[in-house]
Amino acid sequence: MKISALLTSAGINIGLCVLFLSLYSVLRKQPANVRVYFGRRIAEENERLRGAFILERFVPSTGWIVKALQCTEEEILAAAGLDAVVFNRILVFSIRIFSLAAVLCVFGILPLNYFGQDIKHVRIPSESLDIFTIGNVEVRSRWLWVHCVALYIISGVACILLYIEYKHIARLRLLHLTSATPNPSHFTVLVRGIPKTAKESCSDVVDDFFTKYHSSSYLFHQVVYKVGKVQKIMTGAKKAYKKFKHFTDETVDQGCRSITYRCCLCGASSNSFKLLNTECEQNRRKPDNESSLNLDDEECTAAFVFFKTRYAALVASEILQTTNPMKWVANLAPEPEDVYWSNLWLPYKQLWVRRIATLLGSIVFMFLFLVPVTFIQGLSQLEQLQQRLPFLRGILKKKYYMTQLGPTSHSERKRSACCKVLYFTIWNIFFVTVLSGTVISQLSVLSSPKDIPIQLARAVPGQATFFITYVLTSGWASLSSELMQLFGLIWNFIRKYVLRMREDTEFVPSFPYHTEVPKVLLFGLLGFTCSVLAPLILPFLLVYFFLGYVVYRNQLLNVYRTRYDTGGLYWPIAHNTVIFSLVLTQVIGLGVFGLKESPVAAGFTIPLIILTLLFNQYCRNRLLPLFRTFPAQDLIDMDREDERSGRIDEIHHRLHSAYCQFPDTEDVPLEKIKIIGGDEEQGCSSGESTGKDTCVDPKMDLSHPTLKGLPVSRLRHAVRSITFLIRLQKRGLSE
Amino acid sequence: MKISALLTSAGINIGLCVLFLSLYSVLRKQPANVRVYFGRRIAEENERLRGAFILERFVPSTGWIVKALQCTEEEILAAAGLDAVVFNRILVFSIRIFSLAAVLCVFGILPLNYFGQDIKHVRIPSESLDIFTIGNVEVRSRWLWVHCVALYIISGVACILLYIEYKHIARLRLLHLTSATPNPSHFTVLVRGIPKTAKESCSDVVDDFFTKYHSSSYLFHQVVYKVGKVQKIMTGAKKAYKKFKHFTDETVDQGCRSITYRCCLCGASSNSFKLLNTECEQNRRKPDNESSLNLDDEECTAAFVFFKTRYAALVASEILQTTNPMKWVANLAPEPEDVYWSNLWLPYKQLWVRRIATLLGSIVFMFLFLVPVTFIQGLSQLEQLQQRLPFLRGILKKKYYMTQLGPTSHSERKRSACCKVLYFTIWNIFFVTVLSGTVISQLSVLSSPKDIPIQLARAVPGQATFFITYVLTSGWASLSSELMQLFGLIWNFIRKYVLRMREDTEFVPSFPYHTEVPKVLLFGLLGFTCSVLAPLILPFLLVYFFLGYVVYRNQLLNVYRTRYDTGGLYWPIAHNTVIFSLVLTQVIGLGVFGLKESPVAAGFTIPLIILTLLFNQYCRNRLLPLFRTFPAQDLIDMDREDERSGRIDEIHHRLHSAYCQFPDTEDVPLEKIKIIGGDEEQGCSSGESTGKDTCVDPKMDLSHPTLKGLPVSRLRHAVRSITFLIRLQKRGLSE
Repeated sequence: MKISALLTSAGINIGLCVLFLSLYSVLRKQPANVRVYFGRRIAEENERLRGAFILERFVPSTGWIVKALQCTEEEILAAAGLDAVVFNRILVFSIRIFSLAAVLCVFGILPLNYFGQDIKHVRIPSESLDIFTIGNVEVRSRWLWVHCVALYIISGVACILLYIEYKHIARLRLLHLTSATPNPSHFTVLVRGIPKTAKESCSDVVDDFFTKYHSSSYLFHQVVYKVGKVQKIMTGAKKAYKKFKHFTDETVDQGCRSITYRCCLCGASSNSFKLLNTECEQNRRKPDNESSLNLDDEECTAAFVFFKTRYAALVASEILQTTNPMKWVANLAPEPEDVYWSNLWLPYKQLWVRRIATLLGSIVFMFLFLVPVTFIQGLSQLEQLQQRLPFLRGILKKKYYMTQLGPTSHSERKRSACCKVLYFTIWNIFFVTVLSGTVISQLSVLSSPKDIPIQLARAVPGQATFFITYVLTSGWASLSSELMQLFGLIWNFIRKYVLRMREDTEFVPSFPYHTEVPKVLLFGLLGFTCSVLAPLILPFLLVYFFLGYVVYRNQLLNVYRTRYDTGGLYWPIAHNTVIFSLVLTQVIGLGVFGLKESPVAAGFTIPLIILTLLFNQYCRNRLLPLFRTFPAQDLIDMDREDERSGRIDEIHHRLHSAYCQFPDTEDVPLEKIKIIGGDEEQGCSSGESTGKDTCVDPKMDLSHPTLKGLPVSRLRHAVRSITFLIRLQKRGLSE
Repeated sequence: MKISALLTSAGINIGLCVLFLSLYSVLRKQPANVRVYFGRRIAEENERLRGAFILERFVPSTGWIVKALQCTEEEILAAAGLDAVVFNRILVFSIRIFSLAAVLCVFGILPLNYFGQDIKHVRIPSESLDIFTIGNVEVRSRWLWVHCVALYIISGVACILLYIEYKHIARLRLLHLTSATPNPSHFTVLVRGIPKTAKESCSDVVDDFFTKYHSSSYLFHQVVYKVGKVQKIMTGAKKAYKKFKHFTDETVDQGCRSITYRCCLCGASSNSFKLLNTECEQNRRKPDNESSLNLDDEECTAAFVFFKTRYAALVASEILQTTNPMKWVANLAPEPEDVYWSNLWLPYKQLWVRRIATLLGSIVFMFLFLVPVTFIQGLSQLEQLQQRLPFLRGILKKKYYMTQLGPTSHSERKRSACCKVLYFTIWNIFFVTVLSGTVISQLSVLSSPKDIPIQLARAVPGQATFFITYVLTSGWASLSSELMQLFGLIWNFIRKYVLRMREDTEFVPSFPYHTEVPKVLLFGLLGFTCSVLAPLILPFLLVYFFLGYVVYRNQLLNVYRTRYDTGGLYWPIAHNTVIFSLVLTQVIGLGVFGLKESPVAAGFTIPLIILTLLFNQYCRNRLLPLFRTFPAQDLIDMDREDERSGRIDEIHHRLHSAYCQFPDTEDVPLEKIKIIGGDEEQGCSSGESTGKDTCVDPKMDLSHPTLKGLPVSRLRHAVRSITFLIRLQKRGLSE
């Protein structure tokens, strides 16, 4: 590729970008699209931007850019959480380091590369791009020390900036921890691997254990019920109900009320317990079961245990409870919004097998994926590759996201998917492209690690052209499409004008960290590896990061809603990737200096690698533990402050309703229903009254119209189950 | 090598072994050698076996073998600790698995190998040994499935046995934990990385922190003082004194008393504080110091913190204390006998750098060591190699043992040395021998991991002869020399009859786990890798293990003294090595089946590898945590039991004197000395009286004959230091 061709390509892409940005600035002002572009604002602030028809709406403007740039970190933190700040810091870090690298390499190294060989230069626009890479520097050149110094400066500054960011985010994480509103997850421990006993119910076992060994700090607990079929039926019913409601808004009330019975499953909050699930319980019932105890087999999987202080919960989560490390496994609970209920009931002893299976599956998939990639590479040109790759990558991301077995929280699931997508992206975009060729030649590279630096050193400068076009097309284009929300826009249009459905106020997407973080980190990797070898990529990359900075800030503030937060746990991933990129750059540099027969430059690169790894080790010792656990000192201080101010009782009270396995379907009206026919326990279960309707009377009116036609045995069983659940929950509350 | 040659070699070695064992059985009955062969017994039981001259003393006997075999595991546990039991179990495991392997392979596989090719057999004694290896089986033989099945059986049974042993040792470890005598280390936490403050002394800082954040369970603390020069001078003085005493036993009393002053440094026990060290303190003193506070700079490194309960100490050791993970680093303290005082004062923030330096040094050394090994291999025959290797290995073991920077206990130091020696042994004995050739060819094997199975598959059967001779000579000989204690025997003789020194009742060696564990594990590795491929090694190996079983039991019971114990932590090392050996065997098997073009056998080997790794992962999840921490349940139960029985106060009281940085030099007589001239604090420091002389009066008689000639300023400084130490220690006790 020649400079002129590159400039043409850049020009076209810049034009497209400007077009999309202008289009966006117009589309966002249309009231019809307000749900697409301001989902978070509407959901959280109930802001409605319905204006009259004015001309201004159709004139492109730059106000949104100014707004995105002006908002402070505190505002992002308040609006989109710590993860958004971390993502923002990744972009800031990239802009800073690549600004320096661009200045250093474009003005320092580019001329050296260009005049590296004593050849006759044609006019610059007709020059091949290869002439700007280190490939053009002649062997044993006395100017290679400049490249080495540039590598030192970039690595050094990158490490300093990384350290500053790491400290900053660690500080924010601690602030997040000690923020004003007490977080119920800090008082809660998720216990798995509860041993089964024949005599006692699971709830009793949990109670006995924690009363005995954590007596001074144990508050109460809440058993997690095995869902699966029940959950499926309930979700199905909810969906059916919603659809139903959408068409006939008036008649539904009566219809739905009749199948929904309230039950105090989750502490003080009232919950709807659907009689529907007795049906599946019926299915699971063994021929000669012991009536009320048959729920126990299913429930003995996990429990949330609540403690009086944050420190007590931390201690319980950190220590080994018993002599069997696979029983009573305690971890700090995820935040209530973040709990991934459908994974909680997985038996703990299966988890490690599932995890290994997932890992093996991912690795196999990664290598199988080589076949289509190399097939495309073998057949066609780079442009085609670029077209196909995103498509294949899309499938893969879904695949990785789907196969997450084990995580107990949404955020952990996303973070795990993020890592897998990252490995995959780096492997397939960087290594496979660089070491392009057949599958066999790649595997043979794999099997001789010694030659990897040399192989990479040969390949990377040559692939610089591809990477520049990749940044221009894939990078810039992905930002435009992110901003435009093309899918959302079209879906919104169809929904509104074709299907004529109501607006769904509930659905606001979360920011897809698991795809966006790897994307930004991949461009960082490209930047580092190409910086010294082929600096021409840096200006294009800088544009990408600047644009990304504006676009992502805008999206985080306006479009996405933050439901759960990892508390900054994406930063260690970013840190490790940057360190990997730096070391890879240095290893490639070592190979290049070796190829260019410059023993001095190669010799000086080795201590740089060691220093970078030492720096990483220092960060692991000094800062990483803060991302794995909480410091006791801060927790104790917070506990004391709460106790001093008397807030602690209120916090304890709120814990009762914090975690709710079967949440209220807000749209379904609740109603007190008499359940007649239960012969186990009579009377109301309201051990405490926290306001509105908390009591369920375990009697059931068999003459109720909905229950007509159901066999009596089935109803009797339903009553038994409900009674048992109520009894269970009463026991949990009273102690 | 031919069978006849092998049998000759075996015969010679068996003869030598019998000779040595008989010699031992005679020598051990000589009263003169009683210190060599019954060191532990004499030191611990004060048993003296001085008998009259009788003929029986000079007749070889087998009584010691019977005794060694008869003693139960409980007796070993009582006499030599848990580590001895673990070592014993490693031997038992080896005997069991290789008995099975020997039966299986000698009767099942050996005939298959022998008749593997349709060649004319000569008489067995003249056959080459290679004819008994898998190398003799023809390509695409239909009998290779037998080898595969044998591999499955051996791997399966090994895993089952491993699991049984692992569980057994985990149970013993818990019993060891909950054993009758309360262990002060369970109540104690070693805190490092204590932050320095300008205002407060280190002791105050520790006190403030633990009073504030662990108020309910904190008892008191004890600061670790930086030693180095002080320690060196004290040790020197002690040695000089001992020598002095040895020659003139009468006159020493007066001379030594005059330079020794007692000081209550370690709780209730009385300690000698030598005025000598004021000299070096003088040296370290800055020109304008603030008198009594100048010890602080030196002491702010570590402290032992004592808690009321075991559970509290566990909790303090497991949690992250503050927002800086490199400050207030708390770990459960090693047992008092086990503390490696000279490492304690190392600044915590330097430790990770030191550890990395040690690691890098070891790796470099391991590769540099290739040069002499391959040089010897290149030059000479196997016999020479065998002669040189132990010598080189000896140097290396010392080197590894010396470079341990960081461990805070002797046991941790030994365990770390054990791992390094193990890596080194396996690398240099197994891999380098198998892949023998020049350094370059070995490195080229390293750099193409894909080819390793094939390379190993080609090499291992060929090297079987070498391994058999290695077992015969190095294995059996090392046991004989271990039993004979040749060095100890000669040294004892010289000491007694040439130098005419007194018997040293103090010095009884500890068992060298860090050299013996790797040795046994290496033979295990040889056994596994050769079992299916070259089964002829197995009978010889079995003899080694049987002999080792008898010899090591005898030595553990009679010769060595156990001063400190890792609590069974050698087992995870052994477990991992056995798993490594199994996987290596399977990988080599895979390579061999590949070479023999048996896709079925090769295909069936792959799931075996995966299953073995899964088993290992299961053990890591299920049992390894018990070797890393203590289960809270057991600790709480023990705490409650102690509280109930009222023993807890006694335990707390004993903690005061448990850790003693400057132990009593037992031989030096203690004396109350008035120290006049101290103007800081007057009066006796005996805040408590636990019997004999615990008080020091901080006055010093300047007219004392020993102090004549010393400048007054120096004495004044000494008094200040002593006063300060006493004050420090009083503060620690009162709270």
